Amino acid sequence: MKLFAFLSFNFSALANIAPRRYVDLEGMLSTNDNLELNMLWGYGCHCFTFIWNREKEEMLQRNASKVRQVAASARSKVLTIDSMNERVKAVQYAVRGPIVIRAGEIENQLKAGSTEFPFDEVIKCNIGDAHAMQQKPITYLRQVVCGTVNPELMADASGENNNGVIPSDASEQAKRILASCGGGSVGAYSNSTGVPVIRADVARYIEKRDGIGSVDPENVMLSTGASGSITTLLKMLVNGPQDGIMIPIPQYPLYSACLAEFNATIVPYYLNEETNWSLNLEELERAYADSDVKPKAICIINPGNPTGQVASYENIRNVLEFAHSRGLFVLADEVYQDNVYAEGAAFHSFRKVLLEMGEPYASSVELASFHSTSKGYMGECGFRSGYMEILNMDEDVKSQLIKLISSRLCPPVPGQAAMDVVVNPPVPGDDSYELYIEERTKVLSDLKYKAKLVADTFNSIEGISCQPVQGAMYAFPNIKLPEKFIKEAGQKGLIPDAYYCTLLLEQTGICVVAGSGFRQKAGSWHFRTTILPPKEKMEKFAKLFTEFHLGILAKYE
Amino acid sequence: MKLFAFLSFNFSALANIAPRRYVDLEGMLSTNDNLELNMLWGYGCHCFTFIWNREKEEMLQRNASKVRQVAASARSKVLTIDSMNERVKAVQYAVRGPIVIRAGEIENQLKAGSTEFPFDEVIKCNIGDAHAMQQKPITYLRQVVCGTVNPELMADASGENNNGVIPSDASEQAKRILASCGGGSVGAYSNSTGVPVIRADVARYIEKRDGIGSVDPENVMLSTGASGSITTLLKMLVNGPQDGIMIPIPQYPLYSACLAEFNATIVPYYLNEETNWSLNLEELERAYADSDVKPKAICIINPGNPTGQVASYENIRNVLEFAHSRGLFVLADEVYQDNVYAEGAAFHSFRKVLLEMGEPYASSVELASFHSTSKGYMGECGFRSGYMEILNMDEDVKSQLIKLISSRLCPPVPGQAAMDVVVNPPVPGDDSYELYIEERTKVLSDLKYKAKLVADTFNSIEGISCQPVQGAMYAFPNIKLPEKFIKEAGQKGLIPDAYYCTLLLEQTGICVVAGSGFRQKAGSWHFRTTILPPKEKMEKFAKLFTEFHLGILAKYE
Repeated sequence: MKLFAFLSFNFSALANIAPRRYVDLEGMLSTNDNLELNMLWGYGCHCFTFIWNREKEEMLQRNASKVRQVAASARSKVLTIDSMNERVKAVQYAVRGPIVIRAGEIENQLKAGSTEFPFDEVIKCNIGDAHAMQQKPITYLRQVVCGTVNPELMADASGENNNGVIPSDASEQAKRILASCGGGSVGAYSNSTGVPVIRADVARYIEKRDGIGSVDPENVMLSTGASGSITTLLKMLVNGPQDGIMIPIPQYPLYSACLAEFNATIVPYYLNEETNWSLNLEELERAYADSDVKPKAICIINPGNPTGQVASYENIRNVLEFAHSRGLFVLADEVYQDNVYAEGAAFHSFRKVLLEMGEPYASSVELASFHSTSKGYMGECGFRSGYMEILNMDEDVKSQLIKLISSRLCPPVPGQAAMDVVVNPPVPGDDSYELYIEERTKVLSDLKYKAKLVADTFNSIEGISCQPVQGAMYAFPNIKLPEKFIKEAGQKGLIPDAYYCTLLLEQTGICVVAGSGFRQKAGSWHFRTTILPPKEKMEKFAKLFTEFHLGILAKYE
Repeated sequence: MKLFAFLSFNFSALANIAPRRYVDLEGMLSTNDNLELNMLWGYGCHCFTFIWNREKEEMLQRNASKVRQVAASARSKVLTIDSMNERVKAVQYAVRGPIVIRAGEIENQLKAGSTEFPFDEVIKCNIGDAHAMQQKPITYLRQVVCGTVNPELMADASGENNNGVIPSDASEQAKRILASCGGGSVGAYSNSTGVPVIRADVARYIEKRDGIGSVDPENVMLSTGASGSITTLLKMLVNGPQDGIMIPIPQYPLYSACLAEFNATIVPYYLNEETNWSLNLEELERAYADSDVKPKAICIINPGNPTGQVASYENIRNVLEFAHSRGLFVLADEVYQDNVYAEGAAFHSFRKVLLEMGEPYASSVELASFHSTSKGYMGECGFRSGYMEILNMDEDVKSQLIKLISSRLCPPVPGQAAMDVVVNPPVPGDDSYELYIEERTKVLSDLKYKAKLVADTFNSIEGISCQPVQGAMYAFPNIKLPEKFIKEAGQKGLIPDAYYCTLLLEQTGICVVAGSGFRQKAGSWHFRTTILPPKEKMEKFAKLFTEFHLGILAKYE
């Protein structure tokens, strides 16, 4: 790092000089100096030719030297593991890491007819990807998107359904979206912050959800999944290792991956597993105190990923008071806001709690909250759509934020249309209301059933304990691994829970992500499984997993 | 910079120590040490309690001090223009910059009935956004996407068209795509590198286009627009200011924006306007020699943006020889490969030329080339879809690249389906072939007509010269600005061409982007206009623009 910092300084100092010198040289030949230049032309030509020849000679010599360097390293690549971006090497992303890649390979071999595995299918519980697990899309959502993609399929002004495919309420919604798109087409770029009517619909949705305050659509920005917003906002916040960002442990690895890439300092605060992964104020103080850099922001995931807890109103209030007193920007990842299953648990947005706290909090705590089309009851991950809402952000910073997202043009427009349905679904009286409610209820009640099934299964197995899955789409059971197993993992150079998950995959076809991919308290071992596969597959999972774990205990204890 | 480098080093040194210490502390309480720990428990408890109390006290003291800092700066924001990411501040992106933002405001005022402007519409020539300029989508492309979004609209196996809307060839293509999607749904995440059959179709397309060599689908990666691939690859390449990237001047500002954000050094090479923006080898040598950092890669945009030239076979060969001898990674931005209008001009891919050069070039020059659904004849910008193909990339680097894109999950799947049509369109004999060819030909011949119209218009005006628009979607005319005008701009603190474009917008409603947004030879002034508005609007543009420019000359000369 010392060497790197030294090089950075040296090279950038040089780099700052070089282009300026060049531009000045050209500036001499331009505009204002034209007159003087002409007068000097006769004399100047001689000097110029002389200088030009000398410079050209020098240039060729310098290039020749650089070329010798290239020749010396002939056949080697320009871009190698040594020469590539160091920060990218530091990125880890277990949700699509080696175990998941291996699962893909096995799946391909099974498809190609391989019989070398002791199972006939891979059960993918590694990623919150509902449709991949046969969850059906919400019909109305797809109808609206379809209307925006193929307007000729829509009902006409009289409400007549031209092709019997897109009902008039969906047609109306699609037409309203198209009227707000460039050239009336989802093929046009939208504003970088999103299609205007969709931003407005998001604003109305938030107001209605929270029942307090008004939302300026100018503070709503659509994005390429919630991931797009989260990475953008983290990028805005950090300059380098001098900036600390508090993140929960365990966490969704997008956070650690981004912060590694941006070279910021992770300030970990630990969720308390014993009290259902609660966020305890003393631990926040501990984390803040132990940090050698001043934390600049705190990230909260509620409902929790990978941990499935739902924060109480009081808990959120505490976090906001903490953020206020410590001067922290708050990032509230609320993509699972529709996924709450436990009796007595309810989703409270950070925005609502903040506004209800009144002054001095309401108008001073800087807050960004995130939502997505990928989770909830719709599970439309492939559309890559999300939004962030910002509150109390400095206006100059907001301008910079908009400039930054402008350089990436715009979020996918069909995905924005899908988001419009999420925030503006059919209401009682609409033709599509009943089907919408029926489909939505089915998805959420299935998830509720599986949330309990999965936690109960784990808790019935020796050496496994699992906190209730109050919300989101995941269980994060604690596995007590035998000493002998841990030793064997060490001998193989593997993290024990990663070794465990690898064996689970190779022996049963079940693909989950090791707890170490999310970070965890040292010496504890976990894995994350989704609750998304269909009921019968989750039941198969329960059976296979139980056998596997008892086998591990029998072999290593 | 000196200060920053110093701080970076100090803080990161601390940051490296801090988390390790914390983990070690916890490690003591874990697994392997359990036995010893139990033995020490009785004695340890006393010490631990003592240490704990002392540590807690210290912690509270430290927090109190940090809190005093926060209190001292009470009411000020956490995230301010001073505390935000410096690199983001350095980003500039004129294509959606202040003039374009102003154009949006004017448009909204006009919509709201304002009569304060001397025109009744904004003619948006600032961005390559074909559909926003009333270009119609390719019917077949939308039918395939629609089939993937709403499968029940598709023709069934017998070829029977269930709803009279999606013909059987489009249905077949959509079904093939869905069969390669998780759970058969575009709502599922795809592989991070893209839907397998679409990657394979891209590979076949490239093979057919170039007529040489085979393409491994593993070397094709779908992305969120070509921008997504370009930023990812640049990110892979650069570590900081010690890494130089050669980019053309003028350039598409995505390059300078990214390199500013990644803190790399731009090594500019100048296109030669007089010879239709050709890329001359001596200038590449000059740029290489003048750079104080070792250039690591060279970016080429062909056909050119903003400059509209099409590189000759020989020219590409020269660039590749140069890249080979100088050890440069090559990035070929070929998103306008279908947009070639000039007689005698033809698109040659860098891949094709490289492979035809044979050894030692073919198997050693590292090349990434980029394509998009946003340009060409389809103009589907809103779908945010693109791909990159990599050649001769180091395998370890490729693994890192895949890891990086995995942390962003996947490109939008409906956009990937659109890309499948671009690389795998109807062929003679297919039901949809004739309509497809008719629509495609119409778009491209209109563009060809407007390419000539625009250049001819500019060249007929005093003080304006414009190189032929051989390809892409832009003209980049050279404006000779009167001295008095330049002086006035300076007095207003504006770059002369930005001032010119602002006046153009305020007086005529024409929105173009100043040449300075793309960088240009010092002392020369340009702007970029698209050729996308419909014929009658381009003719209106020609008339309004001519009047405006003559007005400027009359006033300032």
